[in-house]
Amino acid sequence: MPASTDKTSAGHFFEDFRIGQTIRHATPRTITAGDVAIYNGLFGARFAVQSADSFAQSIGYPRAPVDDLLVFHVVFGKTVPDISLNAVANLGYADCRFLKAVYPGDTLSATSEVIGLKENSSRKTGVVYVRSRGFNQHGDCVLDYVRWVMVRKRDESATAPGDAVPELPKQVAPSALGAACPTVKNATYDNVLAGSPHRFGDYKAGEKIDHVDGVTVEEAEHQIATRLYQNTARVHFNLFAMRDDRFGKRLIYGGHVISLARALSFNGLGNAFHVAAINGGRHVAPLFAGGTVFAWSEVLETAEIPERKDVGALRLRTIATKDKPCNEFPRKQGDDYDPAVILELDYWAVMPR
Amino acid sequence: MPASTDKTSAGHFFEDFRIGQTIRHATPRTITAGDVAIYNGLFGARFAVQSADSFAQSIGYPRAPVDDLLVFHVVFGKTVPDISLNAVANLGYADCRFLKAVYPGDTLSATSEVIGLKENSSRKTGVVYVRSRGFNQHGDCVLDYVRWVMVRKRDESATAPGDAVPELPKQVAPSALGAACPTVKNATYDNVLAGSPHRFGDYKAGEKIDHVDGVTVEEAEHQIATRLYQNTARVHFNLFAMRDDRFGKRLIYGGHVISLARALSFNGLGNAFHVAAINGGRHVAPLFAGGTVFAWSEVLETAEIPERKDVGALRLRTIATKDKPCNEFPRKQGDDYDPAVILELDYWAVMPR
Amino acid sequence: MPASTDKTSAGHFFEDFRIGQTIRHATPRTITAGDVAIYNGLFGARFAVQSADSFAQSIGYPRAPVDDLLVFHVVFGKTVPDISLNAVANLGYADCRFLKAVYPGDTLSATSEVIGLKENSSRKTGVVYVRSRGFNQHGDCVLDYVRWVMVRKRDESATAPGDAVPELPKQVAPSALGAACPTVKNATYDNVLAGSPHRFGDYKAGEKIDHVDGVTVEEAEHQIATRLYQNTARVHFNLFAMRDDRFGKRLIYGGHVISLARALSFNGLGNAFHVAAINGGRHVAPLFAGGTVFAWSEVLETAEIPERKDVGALRLRTIATKDKPCNEFPRKQGDDYDPAVILELDYWAVMPR
Repeated sequence: MPASTDKTSAGHFFEDFRIGQTIRHATPRTITAGDVAIYNGLFGARFAVQSADSFAQSIGYPRAPVDDLLVFHVVFGKTVPDISLNAVANLGYADCRFLKAVYPGDTLSATSEVIGLKENSSRKTGVVYVRSRGFNQHGDCVLDYVRWVMVRKRDESATAPGDAVPELPKQVAPSALGAACPTVKNATYDNVLAGSPHRFGDYKAGEKIDHVDGVTVEEAEHQIATRLYQNTARVHFNLFAMRDDRFGKRLIYGGHVISLARALSFNGLGNAFHVAAINGGRHVAPLFAGGTVFAWSEVLETAEIPERKDVGALRLRTIATKDKPCNEFPRKQGDDYDPAVILELDYWAVMPR
Repeated sequence: MPASTDKTSAGHFFEDFRIGQTIRHATPRTITAGDVAIYNGLFGARFAVQSADSFAQSIGYPRAPVDDLLVFHVVFGKTVPDISLNAVANLGYADCRFLKAVYPGDTLSATSEVIGLKENSSRKTGVVYVRSRGFNQHGDCVLDYVRWVMVRKRDESATAPGDAVPELPKQVAPSALGAACPTVKNATYDNVLAGSPHRFGDYKAGEKIDHVDGVTVEEAEHQIATRLYQNTARVHFNLFAMRDDRFGKRLIYGGHVISLARALSFNGLGNAFHVAAINGGRHVAPLFAGGTVFAWSEVLETAEIPERKDVGALRLRTIATKDKPCNEFPRKQGDDYDPAVILELDYWAVMPR
Repeated sequence: MPASTDKTSAGHFFEDFRIGQTIRHATPRTITAGDVAIYNGLFGARFAVQSADSFAQSIGYPRAPVDDLLVFHVVFGKTVPDISLNAVANLGYADCRFLKAVYPGDTLSATSEVIGLKENSSRKTGVVYVRSRGFNQHGDCVLDYVRWVMVRKRDESATAPGDAVPELPKQVAPSALGAACPTVKNATYDNVLAGSPHRFGDYKAGEKIDHVDGVTVEEAEHQIATRLYQNTARVHFNLFAMRDDRFGKRLIYGGHVISLARALSFNGLGNAFHVAAINGGRHVAPLFAGGTVFAWSEVLETAEIPERKDVGALRLRTIATKDKPCNEFPRKQGDDYDPAVILELDYWAVMPR
């Protein structure tokens, strides 16, 4: 009686990748009002544009768009079985741009192109750079980003499949922002309904904002979120296997922390309704269930978007911590990160002028 | 490098309120089939009208309306950042009327009018009375209620902003009931599908009903619910902060208990498909995760609704307990509440005749 | 002041059933995109047909159908208050056929016919056999299955209501499969998007597939799922009562394990997109929160479906275990089950040719 391990996927190992290779990922996914509701239940986002059809319509959207980060997580989730099932660490993101608004009813699919490969000196692992893209059912690209990830080799003695590290932009240029955001009717943008009186012009580079609130994460919550994205990374779901791992417990998907920090950032950035781009991000330390996440942001830069008089862009560095309030803006301790820091995210948010 | 705590909201303190002041609350919210599904998953309600479009249509609704209490929680949630972020205790509700059915796709927004203020003798806190209203996207008022809440002062020495306690009705008059309920086609109301043979005429004042079942609450459940309502009260979410609090753990939103008790009440009140009004309510004691909630109800009064031959109203007092079955109808022990009691709710439910 | 236990339902006891009796179950239920999203969040299914409208349409469905097992759980849930509220054990399933695809917006209702009764020699319990059927809002039967369950007697001395054990098919015949599956356009069925290159012809009887991944279940997760189905079995929800029970904790609904195993089976059976029939199933041992579920499947048989050139059927035996990976295909140890086994399910899955 034959066992058929040939029918299950063990994911790709470092030596399976080739520069220039394009991978079409499995399982297209229709995003529905149900997904949006679960996202709201898990993160408690309060940005009015994504919360209410009537508000979105009043400023120029056909209806409430799907939260940008939900789009990110779904596209990311599709890439996991092919790119990072054998990953040791998710190392970074760059040049991430949200290109078109996604609405409930849209179906997302994804591809990844291998744009860089670099074996580590240990020969046990290598770094894979991919440009991943998400598309809607019309074939429009809604999201485009680069990530790099350290992937195990199946066989240490295997020849490295290439050696090239792509040049990546340190930040997305302001001229590349805003494609997913319609022309906002500022006159009908209601600050009171939106929950903040502060518009683009009220923020200045160097300004630091403590988002004040903290939120504790439960195992059921991050598991529900991560499965909703069809992300199959075993570290998030399999307590039996993780008991023998370094930490002895399940790791929370790094994207969960990004969404928590973004939701917390409403308190202080209530009109920053759209994540237009992610310049870079680092999951500084893991989060486990039971931890309470806090966040603060620094305005790194304010930028006009060429030909847009309706909105401007804030370049924000958001830091998330675990079990440490952010009223003292924790980030570094000497050369190292403050041990409470779990996320550093550098992104562009769009705000009405 | 300036810190900008001026951009975050710390909520209002007692001395910030003024009699007659009207506050428009932030973040309008489109209620979707997704919100309804999460509500069902969390509470397991089984009232046929809210569960099935076909059943709702058979008796006169255009389709299944949103559960009345989900509407309540969403409207309540909007008021929290402005009214009760600095609350010490949520003291009571009165004159709460459901005025129009809400359907998936409707967008809710809310306002509150300050109708009473009373500083406490300690001068550390005061009681704020607000009349809060929820509106749909057409501007129709769907919910109107009074609540009062004890709010901290920012500064003990601040002058009290007023001193007036409104007169509040002990109960909503039967003539004010039923605006949200269409004329029910009793002939096509199917008792078997509805799950109960007992109609309005079968209930008598003084009757006590043990709802039998018990349901245990998990941290993830109440957090998901409360975030779904965009309720930002920190006591429900922030374990880190609550560890140093009196109880050492997160408090479950009192509305969670109301919804649990209402769902449990199906067993015995299966045809009481609509909460028409809440006369008053008291969160007698807090509930924590791991507790099992039971409930029983007493029919306080049965009332005809003027000009309605299709439905009548039961005035019910529902008691919820934690970790104590209700077969002996626990409520008071001498002058005090039975220590197991966590909720006493006095409301009007509509039932077909 | 009268107590009115007559208004609450205590469920039926063994002596309440009669052969030939047909029970219409309460609470019709409109299945929405919200229910589907929660199902996805809880189980992480990745079958492309159910995940994406565009994929479903490309092969011949009008849009993505609801997961077959979600339909099963909702219909099953309706039967619980009438059939198994006083059950000691859920003994088996037979002749379960999915007859029509269900789509979001459809409303399900259910009936059960008593087809067998057999008192146990102890006279304390008896076995009730029912044929349960789920219907959509047009009255079409979407699901038809037999289950038998051991039910307590209210009164040991009561006369047994009958004594007849129905003859049940050991398996559903291939000619009875596929009614819920449209003619699949194989030419446009995209293996890459579907996540597997293996079609019907690639599987052989005797083949064993380890589904590799494991997933840990939390209390909140199974409670949310089981309430979503309006399943009222107290053993799943009431920790207070279960503390005094044999296991001292809540039991997870057996159907939760079926759904977990089905979702895990994607890894190895990615194109087995439709459960056409369940031949039989056994909940070998209970699962509790904190347990990690693994699964493996054996192809028992491959069958052509008469007059269908588009799809074939695999008869699969899926075994689920707790806290034991399935790379060694655990099932029996001597005459007994391996103590890690919690589910054995024998079913027909449809796969494109």
